[in-house]
Amino acid sequence: MSGRAERGLPADYIPPLASVDPACFGIAVALVDNRVFTAGNAEQAFSIQSISKLFTLTLALGMLGDSLWRRVGREPSGDAFNSIVLLEYERGIPRNPFLNAGSLVVADALLSSARAPRETIGEILRFLRFVAEDDGIAIDPVVAQAEKATGYRNAALANYLSSFGNLTNHPEHVLGVYVHHCAIAMSCRQLAMAGRFLAARGRNPATGHSVVSEERTRRVNALMMTCGHYDGSGDFAFRTGLPSKSGVGGGILAIVPAVASIAVWSPGLNAQGNSLLGIEALDILSRRMCWSVF
Amino acid sequence: MSGRAERGLPADYIPPLASVDPACFGIAVALVDNRVFTAGNAEQAFSIQSISKLFTLTLALGMLGDSLWRRVGREPSGDAFNSIVLLEYERGIPRNPFLNAGSLVVADALLSSARAPRETIGEILRFLRFVAEDDGIAIDPVVAQAEKATGYRNAALANYLSSFGNLTNHPEHVLGVYVHHCAIAMSCRQLAMAGRFLAARGRNPATGHSVVSEERTRRVNALMMTCGHYDGSGDFAFRTGLPSKSGVGGGILAIVPAVASIAVWSPGLNAQGNSLLGIEALDILSRRMCWSVF
Amino acid sequence: MSGRAERGLPADYIPPLASVDPACFGIAVALVDNRVFTAGNAEQAFSIQSISKLFTLTLALGMLGDSLWRRVGREPSGDAFNSIVLLEYERGIPRNPFLNAGSLVVADALLSSARAPRETIGEILRFLRFVAEDDGIAIDPVVAQAEKATGYRNAALANYLSSFGNLTNHPEHVLGVYVHHCAIAMSCRQLAMAGRFLAARGRNPATGHSVVSEERTRRVNALMMTCGHYDGSGDFAFRTGLPSKSGVGGGILAIVPAVASIAVWSPGLNAQGNSLLGIEALDILSRRMCWSVF
Amino acid sequence: MSGRAERGLPADYIPPLASVDPACFGIAVALVDNRVFTAGNAEQAFSIQSISKLFTLTLALGMLGDSLWRRVGREPSGDAFNSIVLLEYERGIPRNPFLNAGSLVVADALLSSARAPRETIGEILRFLRFVAEDDGIAIDPVVAQAEKATGYRNAALANYLSSFGNLTNHPEHVLGVYVHHCAIAMSCRQLAMAGRFLAARGRNPATGHSVVSEERTRRVNALMMTCGHYDGSGDFAFRTGLPSKSGVGGGILAIVPAVASIAVWSPGLNAQGNSLLGIEALDILSRRMCWSVF
Repeated sequence: MSGRAERGLPADYIPPLASVDPACFGIAVALVDNRVFTAGNAEQAFSIQSISKLFTLTLALGMLGDSLWRRVGREPSGDAFNSIVLLEYERGIPRNPFLNAGSLVVADALLSSARAPRETIGEILRFLRFVAEDDGIAIDPVVAQAEKATGYRNAALANYLSSFGNLTNHPEHVLGVYVHHCAIAMSCRQLAMAGRFLAARGRNPATGHSVVSEERTRRVNALMMTCGHYDGSGDFAFRTGLPSKSGVGGGILAIVPAVASIAVWSPGLNAQGNSLLGIEALDILSRRMCWSVF
Repeated sequence: MSGRAERGLPADYIPPLASVDPACFGIAVALVDNRVFTAGNAEQAFSIQSISKLFTLTLALGMLGDSLWRRVGREPSGDAFNSIVLLEYERGIPRNPFLNAGSLVVADALLSSARAPRETIGEILRFLRFVAEDDGIAIDPVVAQAEKATGYRNAALANYLSSFGNLTNHPEHVLGVYVHHCAIAMSCRQLAMAGRFLAARGRNPATGHSVVSEERTRRVNALMMTCGHYDGSGDFAFRTGLPSKSGVGGGILAIVPAVASIAVWSPGLNAQGNSLLGIEALDILSRRMCWSVF
Repeated sequence: MSGRAERGLPADYIPPLASVDPACFGIAVALVDNRVFTAGNAEQAFSIQSISKLFTLTLALGMLGDSLWRRVGREPSGDAFNSIVLLEYERGIPRNPFLNAGSLVVADALLSSARAPRETIGEILRFLRFVAEDDGIAIDPVVAQAEKATGYRNAALANYLSSFGNLTNHPEHVLGVYVHHCAIAMSCRQLAMAGRFLAARGRNPATGHSVVSEERTRRVNALMMTCGHYDGSGDFAFRTGLPSKSGVGGGILAIVPAVASIAVWSPGLNAQGNSLLGIEALDILSRRMCWSVF
Repeated sequence: MSGRAERGLPADYIPPLASVDPACFGIAVALVDNRVFTAGNAEQAFSIQSISKLFTLTLALGMLGDSLWRRVGREPSGDAFNSIVLLEYERGIPRNPFLNAGSLVVADALLSSARAPRETIGEILRFLRFVAEDDGIAIDPVVAQAEKATGYRNAALANYLSSFGNLTNHPEHVLGVYVHHCAIAMSCRQLAMAGRFLAARGRNPATGHSVVSEERTRRVNALMMTCGHYDGSGDFAFRTGLPSKSGVGGGILAIVPAVASIAVWSPGLNAQGNSLLGIEALDILSRRMCWSVF
């Protein structure tokens, strides 16, 4: 189990991600009874990339409530994560908040509340440190810089959204927020800890503090199930029966409602840009533990 | 709560469906402990239409196993139920088995096993009567005839699939099977009974007999969650957190894993072709009973 | 100049076309001063296929006048000849009468005038024999039969048009007319003769009899220029500067307004389904003779 | 003939264009025998907008020759001028050089030759002054500024092209060149003069100096015929039979090969963004003078 065929290849369009050792594999399981199990490279920080969209969405829903849904849909797209086609057909309303275009709208909403890009990024970081109970979480400046330099596709999406009036801030500023939250680095342990509130009906199971309402937690989990893996979402739901969100850094956060928050990481990706071994691991774990929600 | 705005309008492209009284509403809940609760017009038979696709899929998976997935995908489409666009882009492989095109492939697979259209339709009916424990289930010949007469779009899809070599039988014969299983008439009670095996890990909870394997049950439920309501699937999952399958006759079958099979019926539809009051009822019920899987 | 790379390959989806000798090449030039020059296999009949659409369009415009344009557009499509995608986006109105879908609408219009498929086909043949002054023109029954047997894609298009109400006759009957006019066999000489009225302001230059009005002739030529070669139309106009219509049998009819009607034939096709050597020959001829309209 | 229905409305997405008096109408005809006829507001400068693409294309072909066609196609698109959809399907190669995306590639090619945006814009202006024999042609700085401020859609296209590696300069710089050449202001007289070389086989008919080769002239005219009016190109060719290029400022430059260069201007536009009265005028003129190339 060492060849490229079995593990996939790391994302190559963001140079620092391409140089990560494809042999890495880590997993952390945070149970709602506060036990945490880890294995492999579970303490090594990796770029969470699109998994961050889950936390910016939660934050934006907390600030704006359901008015956010006037600017972004809740339907799976059947298209690649960075497709611009549907935006034209749907007049600038992204299909869901986990597509790059949808997440740019979420970043714009956060930016409108926090006033400036720096403050917005700070707020996102504070939220992640709060839910993970870990002040060591930080942005990887090399990754942020690399994405900014090569992110023409995201710049196209942001400008396109602006042309339909669906960004209220300058595209450059929105892209600044987006690129930085995607460049947040976390270990499997940190990520599993950060996801606990989604497994525990919106509360931190250690402290009992409410992060979001129980109903909103259910809804975010539903979005993860239908849209969390781009055009591989249906297949992942079919195989594991778990709501989850993937990132091109090779991480996946999966939620077992009322039971556990699970983070896996392996940098090799499949054709849809999701961690090949990560999916495999979650498939086996979900079957052995009977953790499918279905 | 009597206006058209609150209830939607019945499907008008199949004449016999357009004439159903929009004031009808029925619900039946079959618990896995074998209790059944009903309310409203729960004993009145209606055209199950696309809900039948759930049962033909189950039947085809039982016969062919996972080889079926070489001919049809498992991803939500983001398109309307009768779209032909994706078929062209994806070279004749329908996105999922609940789209009309996908269901025609399933009908073709069943037809190849049973040899003749009449036998295939008979087998589908027998399966439904078996899982519902009700020999009164039958096809509405008026609906079948009406669909056959006006079904140019489905004829286009069938011929298109044939042009890519993804039908093995003559399009006319496949359409015959398809039109007849969509024209099956069932009451809410019959439908809730028929869905029990999906709530009870693949078994009939009354007799303990296995209908399909537990794993396959989970997978069919996952497909219902991601693709069960066409381009309204994401929204339905978001609102109710339940796997379900809708039909343009106004019926919806929803599954609460390990708890219940629920059938609702009200003929008025929303813009995506799903029962407007049916969704409302399942939303309220799922919230009051905390039945979301998330 | 004998390899496959230089000549392309004959169409393979219609079996009788695939068996034509790819080494064939013929050309005929009918000048408006009534001289005719021929070279190569100019007397050998081949399947004119889509070139027939030019003549059915002329016939339909003569019968219906500009009301035909309510049912079919006049814009190049940028898509392949048998694409169904645009039909969905444009609600059943084909982009132009030279796409398969557009030509089915033209066949339907002819069928509505002539009452029955057999009469319609007879009328199309009579028109071709009249403009070519040649009673030897006939339908190749083997080609007609072969297309009927494998024409699932065209059956899909016809049914799709019907689903939008843009066919008034039964799809089967429209397909019957379409398949038969595509199966007409003509030699280069016959084809060049048949096209003279388009070079001679709507008149037969030998007899002076008017076939269509001068204005309509100009308009049909304009359509040939913008839409005559499917998604290769722009490139052909760019290279030769001549209005023309191609067919997958390897024939091309090109018009030099006020000068000549040219028919070339060579069965090997390029990626867009147009005769590779035929285009080459017209390119050279148009340059040497300064026949570009530009 | 004064109502909005007869004249259309000026483009409203570029504020300075929206404020132009819709009652304006001008026409200038420059014959290859050096006579010039004008009528109406033929001396009033207007924003030539996309008509400038014709001249940047000619300039780029002169510098790069046919290697330009590796980066942009020659096919009509069937889509709106600013569509981004085809770019995704065709991996960053615009369909033709008159679409906004195609023209950005042309601007990038000019920029690579001239080194800096300011020099590139200067070169384009010099070329126009040279072919029109008029040093009074200038850029309207108010229009350039307005487009820069609101041009999110073009910024999206430029970044998208960059993401496919089809721009070699920074998108900002390419957009700078593009916005400025679109903001060039010319009168009908100046425009008709500038187009003479396209009517006179590549030469200035007054001086006999060669601007481009005769063959290239023919090819540019062919592109104008198939692609000059976006998704209204087929219809314009059908009606007038003349190669031409339109702009959203309400101008149209039409060429009668070997006869005349014609500029018309009227700011009210039709649904495809082409001058409504301008098309009408060219339709009548072309018919009366028998100027159709067909």
